[in-house]
Formats: sequence, C-alpha cells, structure tokens
Amino acid sequence: MTLLKPKKVIFFGDSITWHGPDEDGFITLMKNRLKTEGKIDQFELIGAGVSGNKIYDLFFRFQKDILDKQPDVVVIYIGINDVWHKSQSGTGTDANRYLNFYSAMVKILKDRGIEVVLCTPSVIGEKKDFTNPQDGDLNAYGQIVREIALKYNCNLVDLRKEMIKYLQVNNPDNAEKGILTRDRVHMNATGNKFIADQMYPVLFAKQR
Amino acid sequence: MTLLKPKKVIFFGDSITWHGPDEDGFITLMKNRLKTEGKIDQFELIGAGVSGNKIYDLFFRFQKDILDKQPDVVVIYIGINDVWHKSQSGTGTDANRYLNFYSAMVKILKDRGIEVVLCTPSVIGEKKDFTNPQDGDLNAYGQIVREIALKYNCNLVDLRKEMIKYLQVNNPDNAEKGILTRDRVHMNATGNKFIADQMYPVLFAKQR
Amino acid sequence: MTLLKPKKVIFFGDSITWHGPDEDGFITLMKNRLKTEGKIDQFELIGAGVSGNKIYDLFFRFQKDILDKQPDVVVIYIGINDVWHKSQSGTGTDANRYLNFYSAMVKILKDRGIEVVLCTPSVIGEKKDFTNPQDGDLNAYGQIVREIALKYNCNLVDLRKEMIKYLQVNNPDNAEKGILTRDRVHMNATGNKFIADQMYPVLFAKQR
Amino acid sequence: MTLLKPKKVIFFGDSITWHGPDEDGFITLMKNRLKTEGKIDQFELIGAGVSGNKIYDLFFRFQKDILDKQPDVVVIYIGINDVWHKSQSGTGTDANRYLNFYSAMVKILKDRGIEVVLCTPSVIGEKKDFTNPQDGDLNAYGQIVREIALKYNCNLVDLRKEMIKYLQVNNPDNAEKGILTRDRVHMNATGNKFIADQMYPVLFAKQR
Repeated sequence: MTLLKPKKVIFFGDSITWHGPDEDGFITLMKNRLKTEGKIDQFELIGAGVSGNKIYDLFFRFQKDILDKQPDVVVIYIGINDVWHKSQSGTGTDANRYLNFYSAMVKILKDRGIEVVLCTPSVIGEKKDFTNPQDGDLNAYGQIVREIALKYNCNLVDLRKEMIKYLQVNNPDNAEKGILTRDRVHMNATGNKFIADQMYPVLFAKQR
Repeated sequence: MTLLKPKKVIFFGDSITWHGPDEDGFITLMKNRLKTEGKIDQFELIGAGVSGNKIYDLFFRFQKDILDKQPDVVVIYIGINDVWHKSQSGTGTDANRYLNFYSAMVKILKDRGIEVVLCTPSVIGEKKDFTNPQDGDLNAYGQIVREIALKYNCNLVDLRKEMIKYLQVNNPDNAEKGILTRDRVHMNATGNKFIADQMYPVLFAKQR
Repeated sequence: MTLLKPKKVIFFGDSITWHGPDEDGFITLMKNRLKTEGKIDQFELIGAGVSGNKIYDLFFRFQKDILDKQPDVVVIYIGINDVWHKSQSGTGTDANRYLNFYSAMVKILKDRGIEVVLCTPSVIGEKKDFTNPQDGDLNAYGQIVREIALKYNCNLVDLRKEMIKYLQVNNPDNAEKGILTRDRVHMNATGNKFIADQMYPVLFAKQR
Repeated sequence: MTLLKPKKVIFFGDSITWHGPDEDGFITLMKNRLKTEGKIDQFELIGAGVSGNKIYDLFFRFQKDILDKQPDVVVIYIGINDVWHKSQSGTGTDANRYLNFYSAMVKILKDRGIEVVLCTPSVIGEKKDFTNPQDGDLNAYGQIVREIALKYNCNLVDLRKEMIKYLQVNNPDNAEKGILTRDRVHMNATGNKFIADQMYPVLFAKQR
C-alpha cells in the first residue's frame, strides 16, 4: 500500500485570493467539492493572498510565501491592483514591469519543476458594453498573462475572458456591480462560485 | 436672384481640430471637396481648436469663440484630453463634469437655434484588440456623447465607432499607431481624410 | 433715519465651505460673533459650498450661485480638490487652468464693483515637517492665489500660511490629522474656529 | 609590502546614476579627483544606474547587479521616479513599498558585511520657495531614507537637504531648472560636481 503525499497547491494573489479561504470563498468551495467527490486527501489547498498586492509585492514575498513552502502547484492571480492603483493613487504598475516580474517568477517555478497556473485579471466594473474605465488596460494586462502562459507552457484560467462572456448573458441591465462582484472588484457568492468552477478542473489538468 | 449668406460652421475642439485647417487637415479637405462640387459659396468653415483643450476649456472660451461669432452650426469634437490627461498628468476630467459642461453648451446652442453636431472622441492608440489602455474610458465618454446627442436631438458623427470599425479591417498587425494617426492620437493624412469623409455629409444633413 | 441694507457676503467654495453653516462651522461661528458684538444686522452671510468642487466647478455655477444673487462681497476658498484629485482620481486641475478660471471670476466680480476676498488653500495633511505629499503643490496653488489677489487688488485670507504657522506650534507629535482637521482636510471644531477667526476681520476690512 | 585589493564601490540607481560615468558625470569626477590625489589605486568605482528605475527595479536586479559582483560598498541613490511617475504615468511607488523594498536590500547588504551608503532623493524642480509640485512627497521619501540610514546604521549623503540649502543661495530668480539640473531632474555640470563633492568624503568615511 502506498501512502501518497497530497498535492500542495498555493493560491498566490491579492485581496480576491485573500478572501479565497472565507466560508464562501473560492478556495473553500473547491475544498468542499473535493470532499464531496472523495478527493480531499489528494490535495492541500493553501491561500496566499494579501490585500492590495501588485505583481512586485508577490515578487517581494516570493521566497518566503512560495519557494520556502515547496509547493507542487502555484496558481497566480494578480493584476487588478496593478491597473487599478494607476487612477486610485498614482501607484499602478507599468506594463513592462508587470511582464518582467511576472515572467521572472514563472521561470523560477518552472525551472524547479513546480507546476504554474496563470489567471488573467478579472474585472474592475462589470458593465458589459466595454465602458468600464479600466477595460482597455485590463485587456492589455490579460494579454500579457496569456503570452507568458504560452511562452512558459503554463495552464491558464482565463478569468477575464470567461467573466466577460458570462456578463454578456447575465448582466441585462449593464450594472457596474452585483453580478459577480459586490463592489466592482471583489467577488460575491456567485463570483466565488464562478472562480471555483473555472479553477477546479486545473487541479486535475495534465501539466503542460 | 437671391444672394444667400453662406452657412457659418465652426469646428470646436482640441489639437486635432487645431490641425483641421492645415494643408492636409480635415477642414481643408472638406473645403476642397466643396470647391470641387461647386458648393464652396454655400459654406464658411472655421477652425476653433486649441491644443490640450478639455471640455471645460471649451466652456471657458465658449462666449468668445462661439457665441460671439454667431455660427449657424457648431461641430464639437472633444474628449481625448479629458481621458488622456488622467494618466499623463493627473488632470483629466471626471465623467460627470464631462457630461455637465458638455450638456450645458449644447443646451445653450440649441436654445439659440444653432445647429449642433457632436463627435465621439476618436482614439488613444489604434490597437484593434481593445488593449489600448484608455479604451474602456473612451468608450464611456463616447457613450456620454451619444446620450447627449440623443437627449438634445443633435446630429452625431460617431468617429470612435467608425474608426474602430475601420481599424478592425485596416490594422492587420495590431499596430498602436500609423494607420489613422501619426502618434496614437493626432491624425495623419489618412486620418484627416477619414474624418473629412465622416463629417462632410453632416454639412448637408437636415437639422434634427 | 436711514435703514441700511445688510451687506450680503457669499462664501464660495468646496466641502469645507459646505460645512461652514453647520452648527460649529466657520460661517455659523462668525454669525454668532456678529450677534455677540451686536452687528448681526449689518451682514447677511451665505454659504455656497459644494462638496468636491474644483475651480472650474465654481465657474460653472458662477452665474447662478453668485452673480444672480447680487452679493456685496464674495469670499472664494477653493483649491484643495484641484490638487488632491490629481492623485485620488487623476482628475485634478492644471495650474494654468486654476489661474485662468480663478482670474476670470475675480475680474468679472471686480468689474461689477463686488468686493472679492481670496483664501489660499488650507492643508491636505497637517504634518509640520513639510512631508505631506501635496505640500509642494499646495504651496504653488497658494502662490497663484496670492498673485491673483495682488493683481486684482483683493483682500486675502492666507489660510495656508497661517495654518502652517499654527501647526508648527501646536502639532508637537507631527500628526497628520486631528489638530485643525478631522481627516487631513476637513475642519474639526478647532479648525472651524481658526478659519472664523482669520476671516472675521475681513468683514470689516476696507475694500482695497 | 602589501598589495591591497582596491575597494569596489557600486553606485546603484536610476538615470542620474546612469549618467554618472559620463565625461562630466559625478562618478567620473570622483575618479578624476582620486587620480589627482594619488588614490585611484585604492578604489574601483562602478556605475549601476538604469534610466527610469524605481526602488523595486533595483530589487529586481539586486542579485545580478549587486550581490553577484561582491562589492565592498554600495551607494544607493533612488526615489525620484518613485515619486515622479505618480503624476507622469500613474505608476509611482507607494511610500510603504519604498520603505519595505529599500529596507530589505539594506538589510541583506549589511548582513553580508557590505558597507551601504544611502542618498536622499534630490529634486524634481529647483524652485527654492517650496512650490515644486513634488516637494512634499520628496521630503517624505527623503525622510524614509534618513530613517532607514538611522535604523541600519548607514552613512548618509543627504543630497536633498544639501541641494535645497544650495538653491536657497544660488537660485535668486527662483528658476525651476538650470542651477543644478538641466531639466528639473537630471544634473548639469554643476549638479554633477555638486554630487561628486557630496559623495567623495564617504569613500573614506569610517563604516558606521
């Protein structure tokens, strides 16, 4: 009889991920589903989100919060604050830095044989007619994530693309919040469920 | 025989309009076409663009540059700097101010029986995959212009919509400039031709 | 026997002025002092502050809120949001616009023989070691107000200068709020008293 | 007779430091003075400035550009872009990140026995009446540097303090550039000489 060590999955991100382990957070929902499906022993899901984090904040705590913990899989979900803080406090992240810091971490993880899953930044505002002020910039940063995933051969959870598709159907009144988010950015129960559903298959995906 | 006074049309805007009377500018192109079509005597086309102008700068010089000149038609083309300056210098225009100053001027013109033509703000960046950083915000400000046109019953030149449509076809490499603009914002010869073609029919349009 | 019409004084500004007529607001405090000194019949003090207002918002409502009311004196206290919104939302006001809109209103008032009192923008943060992020910009905008006052021969309430002087003495711990403001910007009871004390003499000052 | 290895000094910073090895740059000037004083064999001065760098860009290239080169001394001169980019592109650095990334690098260097010299960020604009827009913010970031120097026992070159002192005397017309800088930020010949004179003694200072 072989006793398998569970797969250690760390979710690395900002406040959205910080809420992942909440009672109705997306990490908790995935755990619940693993239990229901009798697979909970195969996984250890760990939240490593910090409110307000931008790409370089992840880099700053990368050694301590990721490498030292020797994960099997790292799910990176970052970029909202990198775009949002530009207009909120003048302290967003230049696109080239977003690319460089992001790529550097992915490269280090891949070099160590750690599986990496990338998520495109979700939404700042849920309006479906592409009039959320940061839509263009989020599209650009999402595109950067897709290119990194392609270049480093990572699985991708294209949250931005999927959420926009969802909102086209489920936001008939073109509301700026309340469909998937409670405040334009942070997920409500539906949003957490949405993310959990998008991410869950990745746990079982073949590493690329 | 009746000698008709020519229709006085003032183009009211920012640096794009300021370049309108240039040799290959869109105002000059419209004049040339009027000549070719033998209609030049029916119109007086006047450029009133000032570099860097935002909506409240138009309001500031509204009396002197528009009302005092007693135009028959005013073509308003403003909004690029209102959006652009947000990230360039922290001095863009809040959406509600854009709406309020814009509406106030349109109302005054309509109340005096002056014809008003509105233009949606064109582009900041020509990438066709909706990743120009200000795309969302420009869409929002464009939407405001459409709503003002609807409310006050004005003819609309939907430059933003038409340019995006044009770029989908004519920007195969997803370049950020060089198709209609020389620098992401200001028109090159093709762009000036494009605007002239869009605006020309409005000169003959029935006032709504 | 002559029945004198009271002097109509309008306070024209942002949220700080909007709070002026509050129970402990600076306009109320001046009224109370006028009562105590038996001079209340000589003055009518009117608050015309609107939250979030910048210089061009004053210009926008200038006709309706000031000129139409035919005041004898207008006390202008504006500039905090012009500076603050730069970093808060990317929608502050360029220095040259601050100068131009401000000068235009002062000129119109003076041309009509209306007395104008200018106030320098107070503070965003109360730290006394000149490390409040907007200190330099507020100094610049304050300097613009002083130059307008000089050029148009207006009485000046130099709130910024006087508050900085006060904080040097009364902020031993270099706190960022709580001395004159409750939140770095809006006045607490002490701040309202301070402003009332600074402004009161101007009511009786000889027009320059 | 002992043949001493020269002291390896790396200058770590942004475009100002990038210009340090120019013909009239401050690093070249210090080398020239070392030659004149017959001490050039005792030092190896290395420029490691990159245009546009902010504190986290230094952190990003810290291993490669500093640690791998095994310096004896590191002179850190960073902060202008951290403040400036807030209004230029909305991508400045939050004060707490400036503190954290800065402290982390200083701690690592000190733990390895490497001497660290800190420089306060110089100027953005040379006006001497404290009306340069970023004066308050630069004062705040300068204060952070002073506190790090104190906490980690580092020698400090207080460029900001010394330049302000110099400008009080040598900028009679309150010009915004042309005294020490050529463009409000980057040093002219006088500015490079000024920095060289400020830094030179530190080469011989006792490590604290």
